[in-house]
Amino acid sequence: MSPRHSGRRRVDVPDLVARARGGEPRAVARLISLVEDESPALREVTAALAPHTGHAQVVGITGAPGVGKSTTTNALVAALREAGRRVGVLAIDPSSPFSGGALLGDRVRMGDHADDPGVYIRSMAARGHLGGLSWSTPQAIRVLDAAGFDVVLVETVGVGQSEVEVAGLADSTVVLLAPGMGDGIQAAKAGILEVGDLYVVNKADRGGADQVVRDLRSMLALGDRRPAAWAPPILTTAASSGDGVAEVVAALDEHRAWSQESGELRRRRERRARAEIEAIAVAALRTRWTQVGERDELDGLAAAVVAGVSDPYAAADRLLAD
Amino acid sequence: MSPRHSGRRRVDVPDLVARARGGEPRAVARLISLVEDESPALREVTAALAPHTGHAQVVGITGAPGVGKSTTTNALVAALREAGRRVGVLAIDPSSPFSGGALLGDRVRMGDHADDPGVYIRSMAARGHLGGLSWSTPQAIRVLDAAGFDVVLVETVGVGQSEVEVAGLADSTVVLLAPGMGDGIQAAKAGILEVGDLYVVNKADRGGADQVVRDLRSMLALGDRRPAAWAPPILTTAASSGDGVAEVVAALDEHRAWSQESGELRRRRERRARAEIEAIAVAALRTRWTQVGERDELDGLAAAVVAGVSDPYAAADRLLAD
Repeated sequence: MSPRHSGRRRVDVPDLVARARGGEPRAVARLISLVEDESPALREVTAALAPHTGHAQVVGITGAPGVGKSTTTNALVAALREAGRRVGVLAIDPSSPFSGGALLGDRVRMGDHADDPGVYIRSMAARGHLGGLSWSTPQAIRVLDAAGFDVVLVETVGVGQSEVEVAGLADSTVVLLAPGMGDGIQAAKAGILEVGDLYVVNKADRGGADQVVRDLRSMLALGDRRPAAWAPPILTTAASSGDGVAEVVAALDEHRAWSQESGELRRRRERRARAEIEAIAVAALRTRWTQVGERDELDGLAAAVVAGVSDPYAAADRLLAD
Repeated sequence: MSPRHSGRRRVDVPDLVARARGGEPRAVARLISLVEDESPALREVTAALAPHTGHAQVVGITGAPGVGKSTTTNALVAALREAGRRVGVLAIDPSSPFSGGALLGDRVRMGDHADDPGVYIRSMAARGHLGGLSWSTPQAIRVLDAAGFDVVLVETVGVGQSEVEVAGLADSTVVLLAPGMGDGIQAAKAGILEVGDLYVVNKADRGGADQVVRDLRSMLALGDRRPAAWAPPILTTAASSGDGVAEVVAALDEHRAWSQESGELRRRRERRARAEIEAIAVAALRTRWTQVGERDELDGLAAAVVAGVSDPYAAADRLLAD
């Protein structure tokens, strides 16, 4: 069963899910490809995964280019593995023109973890629908969750809206900063102060990290954040040497425990599920509107608007009334 | 009836539409504000405008920053006025943080046309829903169309997706270029070669315009365009002195005549109306899903997904089934 021909074959979804849950990396890869390609099996896969989901700790990692996201992710993987936890990584690259699948980068990224069955790393291209993040990212998280990974790290470049989006997907969001990024904090301000559950100033072995911590602290104090039940800690790391990384893992566990007890975890996951259901429903409607009967109706409504005998609001009412 | 208190008053829409059609600039301004603010009267306004729409020639003008869009727009307005045509201008500024209304810039822009009742110029901020272009741009076009402007010029900065969007709104799209923009053509290539009905190389009084024309010609020849019923002409202008601008007006009229005869005008307008109806329907659904009954259902479905007893696709089906 060569993956190259996967699209044309009948997919045995229950078997694939069972093998993924049994720790078979190829089955995990296959399932992610199925959800990523929006294959005909997508719905079946999602339904088969559902009963096995909800256990993984989903951690978003975001930060401007150059703060050391990949290095930090790798160091976090190592620290989590030392604690005996299985780790899945989704690296979302908004700049990649590839449409997903195993990019060359994955092999490079795997590096230290290439032979470790407790680690699975996957690059995903950022595609359309969800802005910076791939439409299929939530589904890929479900695959890794169902496959029994204890922690799923979702790494995104923090540009534009993607840091807000990753926060929407994650149970806990780590915002990475680094000294010497010029006006990085200023530029990032708008987004990052809203989304971080944890701030990590990386490259603390270089000068200037203390200043970044101070700046960040005063900005967080000024910000009108959500009710202060959780005060986001600010940690420092030197990810390249591993310094401070264990403390990040500990802080993540603390946030997880707090958000479970406080109900924040359930709230976030429900908010996420609502957004996803809505997005799928809207996509389904748009597809339906392109199909024969409905398409004719929409064409008729559009012609009426162009002719001035209807207006777009009245036409939309009609479209939804059927 | 001070416009400052407009939001709180009962709006006499038929009266406003009649006054706008009678050539009263304040009524036009008021109507655009009503559609721009998504006021409660929005639907009533759109319905009242409908019978009077479809006459204006809607022209999109796009190009990278620095090619002289404002100067060209002003020169086009002057040329159209000389031909006795009434002109409305919508200047969409994606970078403006203002939420619409009369920006200071309008008074500056009005310049030569400030006392001419045959010209109406309005800046609009680019807001959310339609990407670079404001959600309310199509409605504002309807206002100017219904108010009897013969030509509506929609000027947008050609960055990212906005040139594609303005082409979606316009009957004819003018893509502006200029020499000395470095890799401007290369960068713009992806977008502009698809959307231009007319290419104008501005600043032709400077060196390098011929080269831009040649480059453009060979790229257009290479491109796999729509069936070549209309071959987009390439014109040169020096908008600051007015050279070549009359030829642009003539080419626009030619394109208008061609697109009317060929049916392209109707096709474009119907495509535009379809997209608008869909967008309004989706927005209406999203609003409906936040309202009491439906919101409870969506919350229940989200909780079922989080609990693993449903999946987002099945939940979306349920949401749409009601």
